[in-house]
Amino acid sequence: MGSNSFGTLFRVTTWGESHGRAIGALIDGCPAGLHLNEEMINEDLKKRAPGNSPYTSPRKEADLVEIWSGVFEGMSTGAPISLIILNTNGDSSAYEPIKHLLRPGHANYTYIEKYGLFDYRGGGRASARETVARVAAGSVAKALLRHFSIEVSAYLEDTNDLALAIEEGDSVGGVVAFTTSKLPVGLGDPVYEKLEANLAKAMMGLPASKGFEMGLGFKASTMRGSEYNDPFTLDEGSITMKSNHAGGTLGGISSGMPLFGRVAFKPTSSIRQPVETVTVKGDKATLQMPSHSRHDPCVAIRAVPVVEAMLALTLADALLMQRLNRL
Amino acid sequence: MGSNSFGTLFRVTTWGESHGRAIGALIDGCPAGLHLNEEMINEDLKKRAPGNSPYTSPRKEADLVEIWSGVFEGMSTGAPISLIILNTNGDSSAYEPIKHLLRPGHANYTYIEKYGLFDYRGGGRASARETVARVAAGSVAKALLRHFSIEVSAYLEDTNDLALAIEEGDSVGGVVAFTTSKLPVGLGDPVYEKLEANLAKAMMGLPASKGFEMGLGFKASTMRGSEYNDPFTLDEGSITMKSNHAGGTLGGISSGMPLFGRVAFKPTSSIRQPVETVTVKGDKATLQMPSHSRHDPCVAIRAVPVVEAMLALTLADALLMQRLNRL
Amino acid sequence: MGSNSFGTLFRVTTWGESHGRAIGALIDGCPAGLHLNEEMINEDLKKRAPGNSPYTSPRKEADLVEIWSGVFEGMSTGAPISLIILNTNGDSSAYEPIKHLLRPGHANYTYIEKYGLFDYRGGGRASARETVARVAAGSVAKALLRHFSIEVSAYLEDTNDLALAIEEGDSVGGVVAFTTSKLPVGLGDPVYEKLEANLAKAMMGLPASKGFEMGLGFKASTMRGSEYNDPFTLDEGSITMKSNHAGGTLGGISSGMPLFGRVAFKPTSSIRQPVETVTVKGDKATLQMPSHSRHDPCVAIRAVPVVEAMLALTLADALLMQRLNRL
Amino acid sequence: MGSNSFGTLFRVTTWGESHGRAIGALIDGCPAGLHLNEEMINEDLKKRAPGNSPYTSPRKEADLVEIWSGVFEGMSTGAPISLIILNTNGDSSAYEPIKHLLRPGHANYTYIEKYGLFDYRGGGRASARETVARVAAGSVAKALLRHFSIEVSAYLEDTNDLALAIEEGDSVGGVVAFTTSKLPVGLGDPVYEKLEANLAKAMMGLPASKGFEMGLGFKASTMRGSEYNDPFTLDEGSITMKSNHAGGTLGGISSGMPLFGRVAFKPTSSIRQPVETVTVKGDKATLQMPSHSRHDPCVAIRAVPVVEAMLALTLADALLMQRLNRL
Repeated sequence: MGSNSFGTLFRVTTWGESHGRAIGALIDGCPAGLHLNEEMINEDLKKRAPGNSPYTSPRKEADLVEIWSGVFEGMSTGAPISLIILNTNGDSSAYEPIKHLLRPGHANYTYIEKYGLFDYRGGGRASARETVARVAAGSVAKALLRHFSIEVSAYLEDTNDLALAIEEGDSVGGVVAFTTSKLPVGLGDPVYEKLEANLAKAMMGLPASKGFEMGLGFKASTMRGSEYNDPFTLDEGSITMKSNHAGGTLGGISSGMPLFGRVAFKPTSSIRQPVETVTVKGDKATLQMPSHSRHDPCVAIRAVPVVEAMLALTLADALLMQRLNRL
Repeated sequence: MGSNSFGTLFRVTTWGESHGRAIGALIDGCPAGLHLNEEMINEDLKKRAPGNSPYTSPRKEADLVEIWSGVFEGMSTGAPISLIILNTNGDSSAYEPIKHLLRPGHANYTYIEKYGLFDYRGGGRASARETVARVAAGSVAKALLRHFSIEVSAYLEDTNDLALAIEEGDSVGGVVAFTTSKLPVGLGDPVYEKLEANLAKAMMGLPASKGFEMGLGFKASTMRGSEYNDPFTLDEGSITMKSNHAGGTLGGISSGMPLFGRVAFKPTSSIRQPVETVTVKGDKATLQMPSHSRHDPCVAIRAVPVVEAMLALTLADALLMQRLNRL
Repeated sequence: MGSNSFGTLFRVTTWGESHGRAIGALIDGCPAGLHLNEEMINEDLKKRAPGNSPYTSPRKEADLVEIWSGVFEGMSTGAPISLIILNTNGDSSAYEPIKHLLRPGHANYTYIEKYGLFDYRGGGRASARETVARVAAGSVAKALLRHFSIEVSAYLEDTNDLALAIEEGDSVGGVVAFTTSKLPVGLGDPVYEKLEANLAKAMMGLPASKGFEMGLGFKASTMRGSEYNDPFTLDEGSITMKSNHAGGTLGGISSGMPLFGRVAFKPTSSIRQPVETVTVKGDKATLQMPSHSRHDPCVAIRAVPVVEAMLALTLADALLMQRLNRL
Repeated sequence: MGSNSFGTLFRVTTWGESHGRAIGALIDGCPAGLHLNEEMINEDLKKRAPGNSPYTSPRKEADLVEIWSGVFEGMSTGAPISLIILNTNGDSSAYEPIKHLLRPGHANYTYIEKYGLFDYRGGGRASARETVARVAAGSVAKALLRHFSIEVSAYLEDTNDLALAIEEGDSVGGVVAFTTSKLPVGLGDPVYEKLEANLAKAMMGLPASKGFEMGLGFKASTMRGSEYNDPFTLDEGSITMKSNHAGGTLGGISSGMPLFGRVAFKPTSSIRQPVETVTVKGDKATLQMPSHSRHDPCVAIRAVPVVEAMLALTLADALLMQRLNRL
């Protein structure tokens, strides 16, 4: 069964392998009448592009999007929007010598077991390169949100001792926080499509993410109701809240406050140190990533625009859903 | 649009209000041939039932399930399984006097804004009473999993100073941990239906949950790859891992290790202390929960069987999905 | 996988066996604010009830609906609407002696092969009794449509020599036609959710239906474009069409004209004449329906309100879908 | 909401406009391990290609597919399969002069009303050119079916007086019949996913289709049960039927007999004769298709491989669904 789609009403399906011809995002359900062009999407792709910093993968990709359908004379028509990003720098040679080794912390073991085969070149579909499609689609979602005056953002909280770890051929984890401008009250749907449930799915589906929290998150579990509950109050006659410990939702529905939450990323699985492992066939072996293989020492850094994209996609879906709630 | 279903192949839709005639769970997609009876479901419902402890709501409910369809001569037929739990103790009188007040930390504000009306009796659909349907459906999912030798469990990690908080008319949060027996390799689907993504959605859709983590979770974000990655090794010739920091998945697919993770619950929104708030119409007011209103001072306690149920439902869906991956 | 739901945004799931405790329809996705009560639904159920004519099944059922959730103070709340019709006259004794015989034209063979077991009492889930749930749900859909000034109807076209066939213990087929008041332009979605595609699915999913056509249908295949095409013209300045050969759609989208189409029903599979058949185990046998078994000699008669209900459900879904098409 | 997908488990989403850069089909849910290559798909595309006969559109398109993802070393990997057919001969000049005219029998009126804009170049998304994507995806479905020894086919039944109509600048309708080899018993799912319901949706979603029937179809409505019912019998000890009036299903589930049915197509909307119409703005006008516009005088001819493709897609979905029915 297909598992490459995100969203229900604003639905994105992504395709393409790390070292295939292209990465694509197909959006079905974008309302007609939205101004769209390749430049605005490319602006977002630039934020995610590798090779721009000593702290990210040295792989160089132009990462320019082409819109192949669904936009006519600068405007969405209601037809599927096909976004295509050509792969230009897919050197697979580094993966040949290690293709029979299970890579600790990596998906190749589970893919081989699940499907009986694995496109080992750059991780195939399991590669974080897939996230370029999320950013492209998220850019369209952001355009939709902007039309309704909603802004989203994400930022890196902490990268620990990154420079030191790179020096040692190691990798580190990190936390990405996200937030929005004030949302209209009512986004999110009871009881299985709550806003934080869909945000959690969006973020926990990212490569390397291992934790998610809304508002105070785990800290809330240590608090009392009298200190945690956000009191209602009036602001120039309008209902608002004195605090926002909940992170912008009540009962899974946006409360009119800004959303905020955090996503925890584990350290990159690929490191430059030799590690003990086993082969696909079950023999002991040592994995030494080839010196010209290319990885991010900290996936959290490049995850920032991806978290932002997933936030936008989740909200775009909720925003359309909200058109259906009343007579 | 409907938002009351969970799961894709093993699909549950729940219905019913806290003070309506019944709470129901309708399962569509349970394979034919599964032995089922009301007793086995009632065993699970007992674990969740209120009124059994000084630390849970004094509301008394028999919480006995009736199977109204889909089972013939003790066996599932492939038809929809309709599970019905009658409400027997729905006294709404406590909610009349406060129905025009916004309740801090509660869903009544967002429901009123979203739908234009709210079934205030006991919280209506937003009540944690809805979770009785999750437990009933989860019990069927657990029967399916047991058939494939998979066991699930959940337990309360921490309730802080519960007794002390009750004394002061306050509420507390808590953390529920979950785990499974060893899973077959291969459950969960790339790239948007990863096992932890669906588990996160399952858990973050629970009333009062605010955080989720798989394996080491947020702690992983502070670690290095060399210490975090779970090394592959051999155990009597079979591939296994030396540690399980990931909590049982690689690339969102079960790795053959037990799953484990944690869910953070905020303190119950309803407390017995008077709190400043505003009315639905926007006037300042004080909310004092009536003395005979009934709430759990710590939702995490009764969330334990519910977390277990959501874990079972998520795995049942993934287990069926796994039948579709290969030729 | 579940297959008991109809509709995407206005989604109905039906449950219950012919001789089980009840037949149910669960509607998820009905907008909040719709006036609903049991009386209006019962009005529609009466049209379908058996036992009212010499030409329909002698089974007597009160067929009174109960609304168990989703309506508060006479109005839909946005929560799932649970409609329950208790079975009161499910005498299964007629089915005991023939439970091991394959019934020509009937579903018991394919159900046994598919699921390995079959609730033979009255046909279980394969019984046309399931359609009572469609009518109940359709009644809610009709209320929604009426709010937007859309009316639907269906009528029996032809029952051939029904009286003569009953006398001989035989059954006959028939055709049910359906139509609507003028629809707003724009209902239905390209390219796989066209209005006639969803109507076709709705109607061809009815028990015993074997043919479907929109507008002139099969006759259109014998015509030339110059005579078939409906010319555009003006009516008091508004765009309309001189004819409606298409039956109210263009490109699968409503054209502003009334919908119309036809559904062909085969003769009832159960007849009173003895027929040669084989047993479940593959031995030759003769099937003689017991004299107190109860069937309609012409399913098309009682299909009329069911066709109307499916028409309403399809349009309700398309109507909500139409809220999503533009910015 | 997206409406460009077909199928649930074997899910195809198509994209691209008649005169855009390409037409694409994205398949999500194809099991891993299926042998696939571009040649086998191109064989099917050839059958549909225009410009090969005096009776079809003179538009020349190479119609060669490229597989951009999901296949590794000649085998499906379980990842989305992206099929792309470049448009090479999209001359839009014929549509410029008529873009403000409503075309009788054509979708431009309803698209403009629905979306507020229309990609008029060659009909954009409403063009029958979209069906090239169905044929490409259907080719993959056929490969899957062949693996399980299932063959599908379709043929043109009747084109009436085609040559004569072309001479007069007119168009004609036609009927396409379809059939399969013997199917395994059990495909199709009660009660809303019956095999004929999904086939009906598949076929009635095709451009210009206006009628559908299974087995004897409308003729069944004029028959008696005693003559219509297909008697069970034994063939070398195996259960089979003496006739196949039903067209291969019982209760919406395949009965082990070959499927067969028919699809009625209306005459092509575009004709070369001048016709009275109105403009988008509501003024009277005459539509004369430009002499270099390119259309099929009978869509039914080129619909044959498309009907075959939709049959294959529907069966592929049902075949996978069947893996889920039993414990």
